Amino acid sequence: MGSLFLILMVTIATAVASPIKNQIHLLMPHSGSGGHKHSDLNCLSWRLAVETNNLQDWTQVPQACADYVGHYMLGKQYRQDCDAVAAEAYKYAEGLNLTGDGKDVWVFDVDETTLSNLPYYASDAVAFGAIPYNATAFDLWVAEAAAPAIPGSLQLYKKLINLGFKIVFLTGTKEAFKEPRIKNLITVGYTQWEKLILKGDDDHGNAVEYKSSKRKELVDGGYKIRGNMGDQWSDLLGSNPGDRTFKVPDPMYYIG
Amino acid sequence: MGSLFLILMVTIATAVASPIKNQIHLLMPHSGSGGHKHSDLNCLSWRLAVETNNLQDWTQVPQACADYVGHYMLGKQYRQDCDAVAAEAYKYAEGLNLTGDGKDVWVFDVDETTLSNLPYYASDAVAFGAIPYNATAFDLWVAEAAAPAIPGSLQLYKKLINLGFKIVFLTGTKEAFKEPRIKNLITVGYTQWEKLILKGDDDHGNAVEYKSSKRKELVDGGYKIRGNMGDQWSDLLGSNPGDRTFKVPDPMYYIG
Repeated sequence: MGSLFLILMVTIATAVASPIKNQIHLLMPHSGSGGHKHSDLNCLSWRLAVETNNLQDWTQVPQACADYVGHYMLGKQYRQDCDAVAAEAYKYAEGLNLTGDGKDVWVFDVDETTLSNLPYYASDAVAFGAIPYNATAFDLWVAEAAAPAIPGSLQLYKKLINLGFKIVFLTGTKEAFKEPRIKNLITVGYTQWEKLILKGDDDHGNAVEYKSSKRKELVDGGYKIRGNMGDQWSDLLGSNPGDRTFKVPDPMYYIG
Repeated sequence: MGSLFLILMVTIATAVASPIKNQIHLLMPHSGSGGHKHSDLNCLSWRLAVETNNLQDWTQVPQACADYVGHYMLGKQYRQDCDAVAAEAYKYAEGLNLTGDGKDVWVFDVDETTLSNLPYYASDAVAFGAIPYNATAFDLWVAEAAAPAIPGSLQLYKKLINLGFKIVFLTGTKEAFKEPRIKNLITVGYTQWEKLILKGDDDHGNAVEYKSSKRKELVDGGYKIRGNMGDQWSDLLGSNPGDRTFKVPDPMYYIG
């Protein structure tokens, strides 16, 4: 704490002896925080708003935050944030008593949850989501089956299997990409699963509706969704979200 | 982007031409991110886990993050994060069509949502939540009725009233503190409300259950909860959460 704390102590001591009007200054900026501020948009606040679902229905990363998001995604903080989610998820999972009937499942979303599209998003035609989404180009990337695993999620996946969980991958990716998806998952180390659910031509509705209906099918089939992990709040909201949900960071795009 | 981008472009160009095993390095730390790392605990990751509800049932701020949380709370980032939540909430609120029957309500939690206990939490006996909660000392602080307003929330409150919303304050504070609470709210500028709901002796259950039951009473009474704002996820989960919820930052304590 050091000198900040000393200053604080003096401030508090003064505040306690003074009427309320003297306390509001405690909420005023005292010290720098390394915030990246461009054109009145604080990119750290923007990212926090995204991660807490305060900001919804956004279509692309604000131009002013493209640089910030790029540094975050390629830097150690994103990696460590993902590791922290995986660590919390494992702590929760290992404390559960599994029923042993093979019906305890862990639901994973795929994009930005188990596989990373960062090599695609880092291209200058995408700029970490600061350039409008190009479905054709993204589909070509998915067809390459070249997405790396998110390291923390892959480790968690392996540990969950060791604990006895069955794995369900539930993705908004279309059925047409089933083969490259399977190839991609296996190549990077996700070698087994109970179900891999992709979006069929008959699956309608937005992401929350689609994923809720697929989770309902799981529950109706006797599965118990003990955990559910996704990078989008639409993976984690709606009906049958699971006993506990885990939000993986993703400041690059929004799916509602 | 500059040089980072140049390096990236070379990396991506290489990656596209290379097999998948060469792409994983894109997920490796490339650049610093200003992360505060102590004893293997990344305090930025810890705070993100708190704000996204990935981390639950924690009893105090980790010792290693007391300094980080203190700087965050007293620095400009906390203030700007609160402002960003208020700005998003207002953007949402002004887009709504109110029914005009006086039944459109906005629910605000009180502690760390409309009033700030930062002067108390900044004391050396509390250390921003890194020292175990002391109910007696906190009650004495509440009785002082000396908590400042969170500036962004106070501005939002005034604007919501101008838009025609009725305000409901829903707090876990006990009825015994009704008078100092009213005094405190009025003193700092929250001068009117439709209801101020405190926790009575007959109110049981955890925070989610208590707040859900009070929100159910509102809905049964014909109120439409158009927005709901709180610093704890237990303010925002459960039944009748409201048409949209807003999470105000709070890395100092957890209420389940």
